[in-house]
Amino acid sequence: MTFKQVSRFVLGESLPSAKLGEQKFNVFWGMPLLSSDAISSVAYAVDEMLYILMPAIGAASFVFMPRIAAVIIGLLFILTFSYRQTVAAYPNGGGSYIVASDNLGHLPGLVAGASLATDYILTVSVSIAAGVAAIISAFPALYPERVIIALCIIILMVIGNLRGIKESSRIFSIPTYAFILSILVLVIFGAIKYYTVGFSGTDVLVHPSAAGALPALTEAAFVFLILKAFSSGCAALTGIEAISNGVPNFQPPSAKHAQHSYILLGIAVFLTFGGVAFLARLYHTVPHPVITVTAQLAYDVFGRTWMFYVIQATTTVILALAANTAFADFPILLSVIAQDRYVPRQLALRGHRLNFNNGILVLAVLAGLLIIVFQGDTHLLIPLYAVGVFTAFTLSQTGMLVHWLRLKTEGWQWKACINGLGAVMTFITVIIIAVTKFLSGAWIVVLLIPLIILVMLRIHGHYRSVACHLDIPNEELKALSLDASYEHHVIIPIDSMNAMVVNALRYAKSLGSSVEAFHVETYIGEADKLRKKWSLLNIDVPLIIRHSPNRQVVAPLLEYIESEEHASQPGDIITVLLPQFIVTKWWDMALHNNTSLFIANALFHKRNIVVSVLPFYLEDIIDRDRWVQGDLPAQSAGETILDD
Amino acid sequence: MTFKQVSRFVLGESLPSAKLGEQKFNVFWGMPLLSSDAISSVAYAVDEMLYILMPAIGAASFVFMPRIAAVIIGLLFILTFSYRQTVAAYPNGGGSYIVASDNLGHLPGLVAGASLATDYILTVSVSIAAGVAAIISAFPALYPERVIIALCIIILMVIGNLRGIKESSRIFSIPTYAFILSILVLVIFGAIKYYTVGFSGTDVLVHPSAAGALPALTEAAFVFLILKAFSSGCAALTGIEAISNGVPNFQPPSAKHAQHSYILLGIAVFLTFGGVAFLARLYHTVPHPVITVTAQLAYDVFGRTWMFYVIQATTTVILALAANTAFADFPILLSVIAQDRYVPRQLALRGHRLNFNNGILVLAVLAGLLIIVFQGDTHLLIPLYAVGVFTAFTLSQTGMLVHWLRLKTEGWQWKACINGLGAVMTFITVIIIAVTKFLSGAWIVVLLIPLIILVMLRIHGHYRSVACHLDIPNEELKALSLDASYEHHVIIPIDSMNAMVVNALRYAKSLGSSVEAFHVETYIGEADKLRKKWSLLNIDVPLIIRHSPNRQVVAPLLEYIESEEHASQPGDIITVLLPQFIVTKWWDMALHNNTSLFIANALFHKRNIVVSVLPFYLEDIIDRDRWVQGDLPAQSAGETILDD
Repeated sequence: MTFKQVSRFVLGESLPSAKLGEQKFNVFWGMPLLSSDAISSVAYAVDEMLYILMPAIGAASFVFMPRIAAVIIGLLFILTFSYRQTVAAYPNGGGSYIVASDNLGHLPGLVAGASLATDYILTVSVSIAAGVAAIISAFPALYPERVIIALCIIILMVIGNLRGIKESSRIFSIPTYAFILSILVLVIFGAIKYYTVGFSGTDVLVHPSAAGALPALTEAAFVFLILKAFSSGCAALTGIEAISNGVPNFQPPSAKHAQHSYILLGIAVFLTFGGVAFLARLYHTVPHPVITVTAQLAYDVFGRTWMFYVIQATTTVILALAANTAFADFPILLSVIAQDRYVPRQLALRGHRLNFNNGILVLAVLAGLLIIVFQGDTHLLIPLYAVGVFTAFTLSQTGMLVHWLRLKTEGWQWKACINGLGAVMTFITVIIIAVTKFLSGAWIVVLLIPLIILVMLRIHGHYRSVACHLDIPNEELKALSLDASYEHHVIIPIDSMNAMVVNALRYAKSLGSSVEAFHVETYIGEADKLRKKWSLLNIDVPLIIRHSPNRQVVAPLLEYIESEEHASQPGDIITVLLPQFIVTKWWDMALHNNTSLFIANALFHKRNIVVSVLPFYLEDIIDRDRWVQGDLPAQSAGETILDD
Repeated sequence: MTFKQVSRFVLGESLPSAKLGEQKFNVFWGMPLLSSDAISSVAYAVDEMLYILMPAIGAASFVFMPRIAAVIIGLLFILTFSYRQTVAAYPNGGGSYIVASDNLGHLPGLVAGASLATDYILTVSVSIAAGVAAIISAFPALYPERVIIALCIIILMVIGNLRGIKESSRIFSIPTYAFILSILVLVIFGAIKYYTVGFSGTDVLVHPSAAGALPALTEAAFVFLILKAFSSGCAALTGIEAISNGVPNFQPPSAKHAQHSYILLGIAVFLTFGGVAFLARLYHTVPHPVITVTAQLAYDVFGRTWMFYVIQATTTVILALAANTAFADFPILLSVIAQDRYVPRQLALRGHRLNFNNGILVLAVLAGLLIIVFQGDTHLLIPLYAVGVFTAFTLSQTGMLVHWLRLKTEGWQWKACINGLGAVMTFITVIIIAVTKFLSGAWIVVLLIPLIILVMLRIHGHYRSVACHLDIPNEELKALSLDASYEHHVIIPIDSMNAMVVNALRYAKSLGSSVEAFHVETYIGEADKLRKKWSLLNIDVPLIIRHSPNRQVVAPLLEYIESEEHASQPGDIITVLLPQFIVTKWWDMALHNNTSLFIANALFHKRNIVVSVLPFYLEDIIDRDRWVQGDLPAQSAGETILDD
């Protein structure tokens, strides 16, 4: 089984471009694929809020955490409504990058693009770190292997996504509903148990000391604390924009389907996030370094029964799905930016399964690096998160506001109000997050985004300058002379006089150019045999021999080309013709010096030098007599017998 | 600082071939470099004998070990005298490979060559493992890091040897004398202390129980045990052949210098090996898994004083030198075999410092692998050792015997007797080692050597067949016609109509061949713009467009070349001309698809296809108007502005 066969088995057969239209999905399959990021945040958002509050205000956290959660849910509804409008206005996909570029100009567009790209990477890191945390909550013995587990999950993600859009949707959609269901069951049973049986305290952890034992906070410090917890909780809202970004992935009418998906999403996040926050308050759950809040709740409600494991399993899977959202959207975002020539154009190429392979791989590598650097710790990754997403939200909402103000379509006043409210709320959130999280990690993102934008501008400048030089206007095309004013010179570097050299000489001479053979003598007298054999040849091709005391080959050749003796004039083109010996088995290649390939690599970039490689197969000389006469045996062109 | 500068700093400036004669050394510098292997074996040979005897016969070991050591010293003197004769007969280097090939034929020569090559690799592994054991004896805490330490030493060896012969000799010669001296001091002080103060037992280890407590051995088992201990002790004699192999490295008169070196070597091994064996008997030293016998003796005699550390340090360094012997000889051996075309010819190429780089690297990699596989444990490596060397000894001595019987030069009877005795003794030793050590590891080498010989024969066959096809006899040279009977066809794969394509068209047309442009359309309608632009061109070059539903580029090109439509006849040569866009900064290369280079790689091996790469610099179009007219700006050929 060759490498190619293995890769086809794992990644699927290649798909023709015409199949592009078929790779679409409906609301039922599409919603979970694109919005699992937002839904899955339930698994860590409550945790992160308590993680901030608990050390400072202890049991009082259970008073303030639900209030902060309520504010975040309010923000969720504003965003849901705002984005439904974006979908209607941009039925071909209205990611923040497009909306901001369209309405605010290129630079705000790039800011949105860079912010979103950063956050997709963090989505993968955070979701997978949290997914692994769910596994570890069930099997704490796996804690030391968390980074390896996370990296394995990323590799599986990459394979799934390289296979293609629709298949990944089907594989990963059902568990989202399973997660929503299992969280709802947890919340309902938990509430019933609390109000009927009551709860006598968890045995996983002892509760912290009463609020009195904690240091008293100044009013300013208290406000800062609440805002910091709010910032952490806002991680719950990342991923909301995914549906608007992915509108073209829905079956027609795409916009309608995308809008329905937003309604579904809003309800799902409200029920699960709100439910877990409510339950954590009831059960006074305290964050633990190894066991998540959800896992503690599941244990408190169900004990170590099968239901506990079901909740951990569905949590892990939805978090993997959240990472998958980024795998679906990040490559599309980059391909759009690549079409505008702000990132390398390879990111706009569709792979053999019609998805943007390069974007998928870039995302996997960067997210994997973050997991390694931060040792797969969700708490350490969270402060980097959300700054970018809320920046993109703000720009997108502001863009939509400008959109309505400009177009003044039916009912624009109402729509402008909604988007304006969204813009203001998300802007306030950006400021809160950037300030409260600056020291704990947000500074990395705050510095990184401008840096990414600078690189993007630099890339754009490069592409523009290249295009400007390469493009030929139509008038110029008509006037173009296709006859060159320069002369050709062919140089054949040779090692000894043999059949391969004869073939090269025949090829070179039939080009009708001036031909020279070139040999490097590595020790004195080494070239004597060659000189003698050359003199026997009935040919007008001069043999140039240069002595190279240091046994180099390329340097003397270049020196000769640049020297006065060589017949070429400045601006002439020199073709270096390299006879390359080809053997039928690849391992036999290791038995030959392959000097030609070394020379080819060394000369590839040299100005005014064309490097030509002439393959030579021993088997080509079937009839020696005819070969001596210059009569080559008939063989179909392009046929090859190399095993590889 | 570029990679090139760093490598030049570490490995030294390159040396011209003319300097080859200067890289020679005298007896004082040359002996330690070539015979440290034999001398250094003192550091483990006594250890290995006791390691075999002690568990079986306990304290009785101290009766038999010195006797076995005496037999080995007898063998040492026979070999020293035998090899002095080899040096006289082969003043240009008479390694076992040459002597056996010369006198017994190719196959025995190959057996000797393969055996020696195997043992050089083991010399590096064993010596470095034992050297690390000496370090660990001084600092037992380093025991878990032994593999890493060993690999670091190998890397240092490689760097030293890549720098060149003379320098490595100077760096590494003085410590050999220091080692001999420190062992002599140990033996003399140890003997004096024992006979004056007496010795009241070591506190490093308790002695084993008395002989009575051990299971009684049958006579056969006892003989086997003694022979097995002898086999282990024979490791002391590996490396004796090194001087005869390296004769040309001595200053003239090389043979005289090499013979003097043999006398020095014999005396040094006798004194140090005999001395340590004698002292171990006096002090009843018991082998220990972490602390070597020499280290225990040094401790018993000097305590943990500076002299203890001096002995450990000189031991480590001489063992590194022993490995260095292999680094000096293995590449020379391989280069000789490569000249006979039994191993890849690259092994016969001298590097920029005049040594055989490839051989050095091959040795380092294989020895490093052995150390990793056997976890740097000398006891595990020893059974693999010595089989090969004694096979080579036997073949070399037999070869010398045949040599004298054939030539009958002055005093041949006496010389034949010495070499005959050597042949018989070493042959008996091979059998003893192969039988007693077979199960503990010698089987690996017994299987490996025939395998290596098979590969060598296969390589030789390949080279002979290639040479037979490539070589052109002088009569044929005179009759050779250098005019080809085939036609040229140039195909230019293009992406769009741009300045780079114009340059390629000019180049192709000036070759005077039939030219076609070829484009792959990846989705329908994508090529329309190109078609339109092409129609504006005033040129007779047809534009071929092929649709590729799966977005591949190379496959449609090959299909087209093989198809009927293409004008070429079977046997014609097709030149695929690839315009390659070159940018001034290497990181900008990442911004371009570089499809040309992909196509070039895919086509390199294809029969009857010449791949030509035409570099295109934006800067070449300085004067747009002149460029349109086909008038290229003057630029010196070969100049390049790529940063690399």
